[in-house]
Amino acid sequence: MGKTIAEKIFAAHLRDEPFPGTKVLNLDRVLCHEITTPVAIADLEARGKDRVFDPDKIKAVIDHVTPSKDSKTALQAKMLRDWARRHEIKDFFDVGHNGVCHAIFPEKGYIRPGFTVIMGDSHTCTHGAFGAFAAGVGTTDLEVGILKGVCAFREPATIRVNLTGSLPQGVYAKDVILFVIGQLGVNGATDRVIEFRGPIIDAMSMEARMTLCNMAIEAGGTCGICLPDMTTVEYLWPFIQGDFKSKDAALAEYRKWVSDDDAQYDKVLDFDLSKLEPQVTYGYKPDCVKSAKEMAGTRVDQIYIGTCTNGRIEDLREAAAILKGKKIAESVRGIVSPATPKIFSDALAEGIIQIFMDAGFCVTNPTCGACLGMSNGVLSEGEVCASTSNRNFNGRMGKGGMVHLMSPATAAATALKGVITDARTL
Amino acid sequence: MGKTIAEKIFAAHLRDEPFPGTKVLNLDRVLCHEITTPVAIADLEARGKDRVFDPDKIKAVIDHVTPSKDSKTALQAKMLRDWARRHEIKDFFDVGHNGVCHAIFPEKGYIRPGFTVIMGDSHTCTHGAFGAFAAGVGTTDLEVGILKGVCAFREPATIRVNLTGSLPQGVYAKDVILFVIGQLGVNGATDRVIEFRGPIIDAMSMEARMTLCNMAIEAGGTCGICLPDMTTVEYLWPFIQGDFKSKDAALAEYRKWVSDDDAQYDKVLDFDLSKLEPQVTYGYKPDCVKSAKEMAGTRVDQIYIGTCTNGRIEDLREAAAILKGKKIAESVRGIVSPATPKIFSDALAEGIIQIFMDAGFCVTNPTCGACLGMSNGVLSEGEVCASTSNRNFNGRMGKGGMVHLMSPATAAATALKGVITDARTL
Repeated sequence: MGKTIAEKIFAAHLRDEPFPGTKVLNLDRVLCHEITTPVAIADLEARGKDRVFDPDKIKAVIDHVTPSKDSKTALQAKMLRDWARRHEIKDFFDVGHNGVCHAIFPEKGYIRPGFTVIMGDSHTCTHGAFGAFAAGVGTTDLEVGILKGVCAFREPATIRVNLTGSLPQGVYAKDVILFVIGQLGVNGATDRVIEFRGPIIDAMSMEARMTLCNMAIEAGGTCGICLPDMTTVEYLWPFIQGDFKSKDAALAEYRKWVSDDDAQYDKVLDFDLSKLEPQVTYGYKPDCVKSAKEMAGTRVDQIYIGTCTNGRIEDLREAAAILKGKKIAESVRGIVSPATPKIFSDALAEGIIQIFMDAGFCVTNPTCGACLGMSNGVLSEGEVCASTSNRNFNGRMGKGGMVHLMSPATAAATALKGVITDARTL
Repeated sequence: MGKTIAEKIFAAHLRDEPFPGTKVLNLDRVLCHEITTPVAIADLEARGKDRVFDPDKIKAVIDHVTPSKDSKTALQAKMLRDWARRHEIKDFFDVGHNGVCHAIFPEKGYIRPGFTVIMGDSHTCTHGAFGAFAAGVGTTDLEVGILKGVCAFREPATIRVNLTGSLPQGVYAKDVILFVIGQLGVNGATDRVIEFRGPIIDAMSMEARMTLCNMAIEAGGTCGICLPDMTTVEYLWPFIQGDFKSKDAALAEYRKWVSDDDAQYDKVLDFDLSKLEPQVTYGYKPDCVKSAKEMAGTRVDQIYIGTCTNGRIEDLREAAAILKGKKIAESVRGIVSPATPKIFSDALAEGIIQIFMDAGFCVTNPTCGACLGMSNGVLSEGEVCASTSNRNFNGRMGKGGMVHLMSPATAAATALKGVITDARTL
């Protein structure tokens, strides 16, 4: 019987099966940030186990609140920094070199097809875009991962989502994933891997696939996953060119992480997206989705472009193309946060930062910031934000605040008009 | 008997003298930010006096924590925003358009020779650089200012500080003011105006004069003040060209705000600065000053370039000239915060932002931020910051943190070496 990519990765990384169905996997990457890892560090220290299984397989970044906003976050940053220095974790990204974890780690080439990846962060599923099994975990799992390089999982079944047709002009990966979550519901993929397949995925850049996989958790999915292909190889080539004779050779190797034709799925869903419209959320759950046209005219106070979902260079380009030469509405505040220093630097070179500033946006340093109401754009009671992030939970961006999720293009159009706007109607 | 500039401004603005020596002055500007003004707004509302004396003379900005870092600061911002909208205060600078108050208000041309200016902020003395009387006030005075456009002062005597000679290469206004404060002591100018005079001042740009006057309060001074001259006129010309036939005509008008030759001073101090060295503070008071050479080798963890003292384009240029093509030490975190969107934009156009980023600096949006430990770079216990700001009080940038004040050039050199460094020794 054929296997899915997730099953192949589980099989290849199996270390132990202490109970039937519970599989202990060897980990290729343990990713860390300053909010959840210090809790694990403190506990390991308290237990006399301040060790790491492999400093080269651990990558760490300060991203949620950076630079520190108060003594508490300064201490969290210091704990991660001191720990990284103490254990010679050389891939540690501090102020000036740091960005949003799920953007900077792929950008550095740390994620490869077939990898197992954990992190104490719910959007770790992002890294499935590379054909990896990547899952967010709690503190205990993170501690074990740091100490032993393993993590126990109940092997998840897979939902295969076939996306066919071709995306209309002005419709993006964010619209696709919002639509899929709307169809699945917020619990529709709980304890499942979502395997994204079909010509829509084949045509997507790695950036777009990361946007897609990033929100798998919003349907409850343990991981979103795309099969590695030449797009994956091209993205990784700067990092792997020493390991392979050619891109074709790399592809041949990576294709072993492709689901078999006769693999078994928990469920198979087919969506033809040829007529998909830009999508926007309306409630406090990510599956409350309508078309941007249906939501048109809804008041907003703030526009936030950035995050691990949509803070990459393609996202900034899409927004900037709409903002160029224009001013955002006087009634709104615009905030853009390029997700990494490289993205900031590329956007600078391409004139995108200037476009945002000329339009009236505030350009922040790379950080998770406002997405989770931690810094750089927290909403006040009653305020409404059009956001390219991934969660619209009640109070997510500030107590009493309302969040509408959307693509960077829709967010830019919304900024110009001061109310939710389908960019294609500008 | 001749008068000082301060006495002339007091005489021209006198509205009432309820008690001998207490003078109620008409105000030309009441400046507001989101930390102190909401307290005044709430109190005025509670008293049924939610009014403003003149919306055109009130200028407001969100600058201390921006974009908001939590619900509390989001509410403070919202209170100022709602108030500005309610009273049609058109010169209100919100996220995307906002910067450090003492940088953005002069940049917009709001400060003129002979003006009276108050603000609920201790570094309001900055605006004395234009030949204005500008003083930080408490909440009650701010409320009266907002409501009635007046403020009561005991007329301060003036200390005249004559600065002669010419500054050596690599020595800046920041070094001058640190030296002067070191000489005066932190209480040396309490309840006094410090009038800066002499060829050193004549040769200074308006930016440098603002750096100088900014720190008058650190010697206890109510206001630092420079006499208006052609440099003042040149800076203001874009804003006043409709009011005067020529720059000479403007100068002739502004020269009425020049101290008379036979004016009486509380004290006159003379300093020849031809051999002044770059200055650095060493303790928890701004008058604890040594030369950068004496302080050389002192460990730092963070470098902060920005603030109302030294976040202007000249400051960024000076630092960038030192950083260009180099990397800062791995042991330190570099943070630069251009003081206004215009400064950010100019620095972008001049390639300065790229230089900072290439050197490994984190570039934040314009904000007061870390200077007072409120956001974007708060220190942890035991950490040390080389800062271009104006206060090294114990805990100022974070509880348990240490701050060394210095010029942007010294800060840049310190960033490169990771220890306090006189830039001239690089």
